[in-house]
Amino acid sequence: VWGDPERCPKDLANGAAVRVTGTVRASPRQDQQAIELHVDTTEVIGSCPGEVYPLATKRHSLEYLREKTHLRPRTATIAAAMRIRSSLTHHVHTYFAATAFFQVHTPILTTNDCEGAGETFGVTAPAYTTPRSRAASVEPPAQCRTTTAAKTDDAAHFFGRPAHLTVSGQLHAEAMATALSRVYTFGPTFRAENSNTPRHLAEFYMLEAEVAFGGLDTAVGIAEACIQHCAEALLADESAVRDLELLWAHAEANGPTADVGAWTKAVDAPFARMTYTDAIGALADSAVEFRYPVSWGIDLKHEHEQWLARALHGGPVVITDYPAAIKPFYMRRNDGDATVACFDLLVPGVGELVGGSAREERLDVLEAAIPAGAHDALDWYVDLRRYGTVPHAGFGMGFERLIQYFTGISNIRDVIPFPRHVGTCRL
Amino acid sequence: VWGDPERCPKDLANGAAVRVTGTVRASPRQDQQAIELHVDTTEVIGSCPGEVYPLATKRHSLEYLREKTHLRPRTATIAAAMRIRSSLTHHVHTYFAATAFFQVHTPILTTNDCEGAGETFGVTAPAYTTPRSRAASVEPPAQCRTTTAAKTDDAAHFFGRPAHLTVSGQLHAEAMATALSRVYTFGPTFRAENSNTPRHLAEFYMLEAEVAFGGLDTAVGIAEACIQHCAEALLADESAVRDLELLWAHAEANGPTADVGAWTKAVDAPFARMTYTDAIGALADSAVEFRYPVSWGIDLKHEHEQWLARALHGGPVVITDYPAAIKPFYMRRNDGDATVACFDLLVPGVGELVGGSAREERLDVLEAAIPAGAHDALDWYVDLRRYGTVPHAGFGMGFERLIQYFTGISNIRDVIPFPRHVGTCRL
Repeated sequence: VWGDPERCPKDLANGAAVRVTGTVRASPRQDQQAIELHVDTTEVIGSCPGEVYPLATKRHSLEYLREKTHLRPRTATIAAAMRIRSSLTHHVHTYFAATAFFQVHTPILTTNDCEGAGETFGVTAPAYTTPRSRAASVEPPAQCRTTTAAKTDDAAHFFGRPAHLTVSGQLHAEAMATALSRVYTFGPTFRAENSNTPRHLAEFYMLEAEVAFGGLDTAVGIAEACIQHCAEALLADESAVRDLELLWAHAEANGPTADVGAWTKAVDAPFARMTYTDAIGALADSAVEFRYPVSWGIDLKHEHEQWLARALHGGPVVITDYPAAIKPFYMRRNDGDATVACFDLLVPGVGELVGGSAREERLDVLEAAIPAGAHDALDWYVDLRRYGTVPHAGFGMGFERLIQYFTGISNIRDVIPFPRHVGTCRL
Repeated sequence: VWGDPERCPKDLANGAAVRVTGTVRASPRQDQQAIELHVDTTEVIGSCPGEVYPLATKRHSLEYLREKTHLRPRTATIAAAMRIRSSLTHHVHTYFAATAFFQVHTPILTTNDCEGAGETFGVTAPAYTTPRSRAASVEPPAQCRTTTAAKTDDAAHFFGRPAHLTVSGQLHAEAMATALSRVYTFGPTFRAENSNTPRHLAEFYMLEAEVAFGGLDTAVGIAEACIQHCAEALLADESAVRDLELLWAHAEANGPTADVGAWTKAVDAPFARMTYTDAIGALADSAVEFRYPVSWGIDLKHEHEQWLARALHGGPVVITDYPAAIKPFYMRRNDGDATVACFDLLVPGVGELVGGSAREERLDVLEAAIPAGAHDALDWYVDLRRYGTVPHAGFGMGFERLIQYFTGISNIRDVIPFPRHVGTCRL
């Protein structure tokens, strides 16, 4: 509030950096805002030429803002999303610190041969780098230096074998869990997937936990407790709630609204749970005509997951014991059964938020499950069963999906600061 | 303590996984340990064949353990190092959360042209990936699937232009700081450096902070407060102190001991501070014969940094205002001077622990400083000065070096779970 309009500088434009001093007072319009600032002095530190500034005071579409990646965190919507992302990051760490987990940094670069298959990014290194006599500066190197270094096809000459970007820290986390008992890893993960959709990123964040001396129920319980801790911590934080309300309003103005914010009504309710076999039965018995037909043995599609979470349970549901044939080799085989001790947590809107399992700890069963040709590459992983093997279990959670679940933001590209996906890697 | 030796199972070998029940009692030998467990039952869950188990009960060299990357966290030394790493990670997050910072996840993959120069890793993508109709599973994909995907030379076809692994999140963090004011980023960073030394990693962790409305002193103050918070939090944690004492004893048994643990004696002492010009003067006036001659304009070598921290100050020292010619373009030029408003924090043993600066916020000065040919690639970065520019500053801290400083571990490969460096990328 400028008592004297003359005190409002002429160059106080949208986007300018300003320093304002004054007195904070209760607002006379309490229904609109709690406090207001009565200004004594205003200094424009950095002006902003409104005629060329890409952000107008009007509301821009999220599509437009994605092209202004470096400026969009200045908008109310993206700033709120980034603050919620920061809060959730903190709550995740707080949850695991309070429950006797150690955080481990599993590697981004990996030479696990079998992780080089399929949709992974490879890595190249300059053919000739100059040996240096002292350690690299901690400060980033002077960028844009010219260089005569040639590029080669892969990093085989650098590491001695081809390296890839990790698709999961799980196998490494298992090595750490069989030493430190309870570990989690939380960081970027990569998928070179040719899917240009609102649900895919090439670089995304995964939270992965592994626990020794535990089974399927242990993993489900930790995932549930972690999500509930995050939900409660968000709702206990006034400024986070203001950001959430802004984002919910934005989501409701832009699309289907049924589920946005619905999680707040049942923060500490235990998640519903059913087996894959029962889920297939319920889907088959429903009157819904799915695009993909339902039968025992199929992998559940997004439409099936949505029906189970939204229509059948009206909230999160844990589906357990999928067919072994559609799950990875490391999941623990159920006794006398064609299923494995695994689970997916499905939530309305987002779909699969968490996937996990008991890990096969029986040496002979694991060795029989490892795909042909991969035994050499996984010999270190089998070592974890040769030497003091222990029942253990874990899960992976898509962190962007967690943010989407809480905020109602429909496009995954709007919950990460610098989205990377096929066709796009800005800045 | 097995009261009856018969109760101790015959297959209770080193490396086995066991479940033991009993009663915790005060130990009669309090000088050796505080408590002991009087055993009722012992169950060997996973046995361990001692004749082939790579870890004996005797102490192995750290060199040997590096070749058993997946098993070495089971040793007392590496387990202690990993627990300290976990604690320090937590203390870093706690410090920034308590001081009104937002955590931002700056990208690993970047297309900043000028970051592609020199010692950076490039990225390749499969030439043909199969489009999928549903989102990727959160659970890691079934590894070791065979694939027909061909590899191409770079990821240009995937992202539309070549992508690299980040060498620093700083420029991206600046974009976030000019929106959210106070931000930090903490994650893996990459340098394809051909240096096979105990001081280099190809994948290492950096903590980087950026603050709007601040200058050089702001950045120095935050780095100092963060380190002191971490030091105090470690020393306030009994189990961390036990781990530190084990690691200090190990370090003292293996090498020069002068500085190990010395930081505990001056946890809250302000860091000494001097300008680069004064540091050059002190080095020149010293009677020491350095391998690299000293004169104004040189970049300080490890031997110089060690003399300044160890001999001259006997502890951490902040060196400010280096010559512009040896520093990156984005550092703020000091008025009427050939120096920039930057600092390096040097500590005994480790050397450079932190590097930071005020960032050049003046549009014309920045544009003149940007290297020829890089203006197009950095146009987005210059935008941050075109639209509401603001004085801001930040720093980067080498997280492995912080662990080395506190623990006295001399080889950087022993403070990260899965070390990657030229010639080595195990698992």
